[in-house]
Amino acid sequence: MHIDVLTLFPEMFEGVLNTSIMKRAQDMNAFSYNTVNFREHTESKHKKVDDTPYGGGAGMVLSPQPIFDAVESTIEKQSSDKKPRVILMCPQGEPHTQEKAEELSQEDHLIFLCGHYEGYDERIRTHLVTDEISIGDYVLTGGELGAMVVMDSVVRLLPGVLGNETSAPEDSFSNGLLEHPHYTKPRDFRGMQVPEVLLSGNHAKIDEWRHYQSLKRTFERRKDLLEDYPFSDKELKWIEKWKNQ
Amino acid sequence: MHIDVLTLFPEMFEGVLNTSIMKRAQDMNAFSYNTVNFREHTESKHKKVDDTPYGGGAGMVLSPQPIFDAVESTIEKQSSDKKPRVILMCPQGEPHTQEKAEELSQEDHLIFLCGHYEGYDERIRTHLVTDEISIGDYVLTGGELGAMVVMDSVVRLLPGVLGNETSAPEDSFSNGLLEHPHYTKPRDFRGMQVPEVLLSGNHAKIDEWRHYQSLKRTFERRKDLLEDYPFSDKELKWIEKWKNQ
Repeated sequence: MHIDVLTLFPEMFEGVLNTSIMKRAQDMNAFSYNTVNFREHTESKHKKVDDTPYGGGAGMVLSPQPIFDAVESTIEKQSSDKKPRVILMCPQGEPHTQEKAEELSQEDHLIFLCGHYEGYDERIRTHLVTDEISIGDYVLTGGELGAMVVMDSVVRLLPGVLGNETSAPEDSFSNGLLEHPHYTKPRDFRGMQVPEVLLSGNHAKIDEWRHYQSLKRTFERRKDLLEDYPFSDKELKWIEKWKNQ
Repeated sequence: MHIDVLTLFPEMFEGVLNTSIMKRAQDMNAFSYNTVNFREHTESKHKKVDDTPYGGGAGMVLSPQPIFDAVESTIEKQSSDKKPRVILMCPQGEPHTQEKAEELSQEDHLIFLCGHYEGYDERIRTHLVTDEISIGDYVLTGGELGAMVVMDSVVRLLPGVLGNETSAPEDSFSNGLLEHPHYTKPRDFRGMQVPEVLLSGNHAKIDEWRHYQSLKRTFERRKDLLEDYPFSDKELKWIEKWKNQ
């Protein structure tokens, strides 16, 4: 997979993308990336990439010309004939999910557009981009962190990128429940003990304890995740008990 | 505000935190940050910070000792007597929101704990942290990007950090609707036109068009945001029309 990132702040990406798993993914040729400063593509004499909004109002709006030209120049350079996904990071986009990350991990070429505390000219949305993504309902100073978040969620799914030591957190979303509590050594840390059941060696009991804790945590923190959950009779009894607490 | 970040990958933060608004916020002394590699706080001979889970299973679990000691050493260095917020980045946390960012922007000292493709010993959650935050329902390789996202959403709210040029995107969430489309020059870009109404100079019409587009976009993309929206009679007629389309 190749990823191009259009941004006015290319220096934001290096530290994140050249560390840990993202570094390993590049070393094993699972993915490569390139940052494109779209200011280099503007036809404006003063290197402007934005202008005031038609109809008035505060703030600036990114102009269509530098963005269209930067994306098209990036597509010309690609080796494959397959159309790339052109992804706009913005608060109006569809909320990012694990399913979306899996879908994007099947592509050969992704292009991310990152604005920075500005709006985008609507013609960029309607005639250039294929996907608009938001990483959550909070305001950030730019699309760069969002692009890194989506990239990380996608690249870790590419074949071979995750070694064995990194497989466990997948549990978090694969069964639709939040993860159960974990404990490691020491048994007693400043008087705080590891639950007896985890020391028992009884694997059926340990599995049941973990499942109980996992469901309880989801019930207490994220009822929204349980809307389509296929409850067993036993689980329904647990839920009744927690409701009465 | 001072922010300490506990991480095994301090090099991930520099590019993001020393650019643009985050750089400006430091230059004007609105905030300072420090990264702490908690591996330096382990008592383990081999500099280990994690171990296998009690009760069995895949993956490793971060040990309590290095994390407790690193947090306590950080608190000892602070000048204020006010207790810091100790924030764990994890998929089991409460979903991050703009309200949470505003709440955290009132604090003097934040400490972020970032694990990396591992679980946390439960005693860290129950006896050390004050907040658990998730930036969204997708799996990332570590808590670092999440910490940067929360930091960015908080620091931009500190007094004086945002100049005038950056005030507009606030609209996105302040009235509970997604933003309306923006257009800037040229009027005609490769045959794609700016809507006539925005060129009319009629501000009442422009305001109505923008509000209509804003509500329509929210209705089409994020019905969940409209659950508590106080619809007017006119807006209810628009909704009826869109439902029939």
